[in-house]
Amino acid sequence: MLPEPFQHALDHHKARHEPRPRGGDYLRLTDDVHGSPRGTLLWDDRLVPGYPHIGRILQLETGLAQQFSGPFWVEEKVDGYNVRVARLGDEVLAFTRGGFVCPFTTDRLPDLLDLTLFEDHPDVVVCAEVAGPDQPYVVGHPPQVQEDVQIFVFDLMRIGEPGFLPDADLDALAAHYGLPRVTRFGRLAPSEWRQAGELLRALNAERREGVVLKEIGPPGRRAKYVTGASCIDDILATVDNLPQLPAEYFTGRVLRLALFLAEQGENALPTVREQLGRAFVDGLLDALGRFRRDHRVSHTHRCRLRDRESAERLMAHLRRHEGPIQVIERRLEWDGGHWVLELEKVYAGMTGLLGHLLAGGIVFD
Amino acid sequence: MLPEPFQHALDHHKARHEPRPRGGDYLRLTDDVHGSPRGTLLWDDRLVPGYPHIGRILQLETGLAQQFSGPFWVEEKVDGYNVRVARLGDEVLAFTRGGFVCPFTTDRLPDLLDLTLFEDHPDVVVCAEVAGPDQPYVVGHPPQVQEDVQIFVFDLMRIGEPGFLPDADLDALAAHYGLPRVTRFGRLAPSEWRQAGELLRALNAERREGVVLKEIGPPGRRAKYVTGASCIDDILATVDNLPQLPAEYFTGRVLRLALFLAEQGENALPTVREQLGRAFVDGLLDALGRFRRDHRVSHTHRCRLRDRESAERLMAHLRRHEGPIQVIERRLEWDGGHWVLELEKVYAGMTGLLGHLLAGGIVFD
Repeated sequence: MLPEPFQHALDHHKARHEPRPRGGDYLRLTDDVHGSPRGTLLWDDRLVPGYPHIGRILQLETGLAQQFSGPFWVEEKVDGYNVRVARLGDEVLAFTRGGFVCPFTTDRLPDLLDLTLFEDHPDVVVCAEVAGPDQPYVVGHPPQVQEDVQIFVFDLMRIGEPGFLPDADLDALAAHYGLPRVTRFGRLAPSEWRQAGELLRALNAERREGVVLKEIGPPGRRAKYVTGASCIDDILATVDNLPQLPAEYFTGRVLRLALFLAEQGENALPTVREQLGRAFVDGLLDALGRFRRDHRVSHTHRCRLRDRESAERLMAHLRRHEGPIQVIERRLEWDGGHWVLELEKVYAGMTGLLGHLLAGGIVFD
Repeated sequence: MLPEPFQHALDHHKARHEPRPRGGDYLRLTDDVHGSPRGTLLWDDRLVPGYPHIGRILQLETGLAQQFSGPFWVEEKVDGYNVRVARLGDEVLAFTRGGFVCPFTTDRLPDLLDLTLFEDHPDVVVCAEVAGPDQPYVVGHPPQVQEDVQIFVFDLMRIGEPGFLPDADLDALAAHYGLPRVTRFGRLAPSEWRQAGELLRALNAERREGVVLKEIGPPGRRAKYVTGASCIDDILATVDNLPQLPAEYFTGRVLRLALFLAEQGENALPTVREQLGRAFVDGLLDALGRFRRDHRVSHTHRCRLRDRESAERLMAHLRRHEGPIQVIERRLEWDGGHWVLELEKVYAGMTGLLGHLLAGGIVFD
């Protein structure tokens, strides 16, 4: 008999068996089930909690007052991908938000974290963002990471237990093992929305993504808030993949941008109209130009790996999970310190659509 | 036994009974069925064909060559709503694209068309666009109609028969009954994409919607093509109703705009980025301002009617068919020539969303 929610999830087709790197398999929730988020996983009898959803506020003045009853930490929200790192058997593995083993992050863990943490504390789960220009998932990177990748730890969890470990535990372990943490900008009260706004305008000016707010006392609520600039930059970075993203991806960011402007003022983003128009128009014209030159619309990711085998595992992972995106290995070379993998993701949706339209095809809408 | 496709459609829940203005009912296709478009209707034994879908091309040079094997008419695509006008029993009625009796257009038919046409030719169906600032459906109007509404006839059909009547019949009836027709800009060959482009750039400069192209010989194919300016103007006109429109409404227009620019050149729309950013940002900021002032986001339509009863029928029609939009009668007054109805459509989606967000509510996305 499996521990809940896995028995229920399997019965309702909300859990799947996934292969382990060294043979055998584990269970992964493919949907939220009874309060356990998608990505929760069961490895033998060890349950690694999923990373919970964090809601978004679009206004600081009212949002802080509405969401928090006491002071909260203001931490940076870094633009990368979410991982959970845990020791399972004799391996330390990194899992994506969805609960897949990430071959890239797992390979690079010794470069990113002091792994003796997991020898001393085998039940700790490190929750972090991995960000930088050289990774296989996200197009774009935060301004503070200009090469390779860095990890930014923001939470600890414990295997088999719901919720996060207390802040004091994170402080202690981070200090002892030198964990790189997300920037903590400070502590604010719900009434201090003006200070929060000042910080967000500064982050916006540096084109950083935004903040996660964590209530310090119970009930420990959380909320995120992003800058207008990050909405524009997201659109520019992804509009060449428009047909394969939900259209709400774009309209949602336009709405967030307008609400950011409404509260933070026009001076926070003086050329916002030109910038937004440019993100859509130049992003698409650029995709058109690339289609005409290369007969496809694609993005080439580069990443560094310690083991050559990890590159194969990563390619297999991307080919299985990136949906209708063709993934092509372009280069794999030892640079003296790492294997450098270049992989091209061909956006099949945009490639097909532009091929059809530029050839004079007709669409019904 | 009903004539096909109605028997099949009823069996598959793709036809519905709708009330007639003077009692009784008729059948309306709610989906395309076996090549008959949604909106096809059966009134006693008289079948009024639905108006067929017209596909869209996004490039002229290749699109004209791909879609047409011979010369085609270039007609204006007017930004209004599609109607079919037919005599049924002893009434002449206007139907919307979806096959509902339109109480507004039906009321105004004597102002728009010489109805003796339907006495002399009781089986003719007039297909037309109704456009102007004073109608209950569309926000925005073509520049050539600055008050009330006008009708622009573009096709004739015959009750019980598929397809359109020959061009010669439209010419003859239009001349005899003085039917107001859409502008016909001329006749082009598929190779004359440069001339088509020149025309479209001129329409774009006047912020007109675009063209419908009708192949003159068999197979009589059709295609539409719209200006970049109309994509921007559509976004500006509707972004205050964003949550209730499919997000693809917006992303589709952004894509069309980019393809228009790519073929027609930047000079066709020199400030396009600023204009597009303005449509999204100022459209939303304006909606926010209205929400703060009025506690709702809405649009007030005005229209003129001949009979007071038509106003009641129109309000009932809108309330039944406009989905989650609240429709409020604001004014109904005789101006000496017509009843002037002002009706406010409250966009429940945007009103609810802004209410939630401005109050500090949280969203999960």
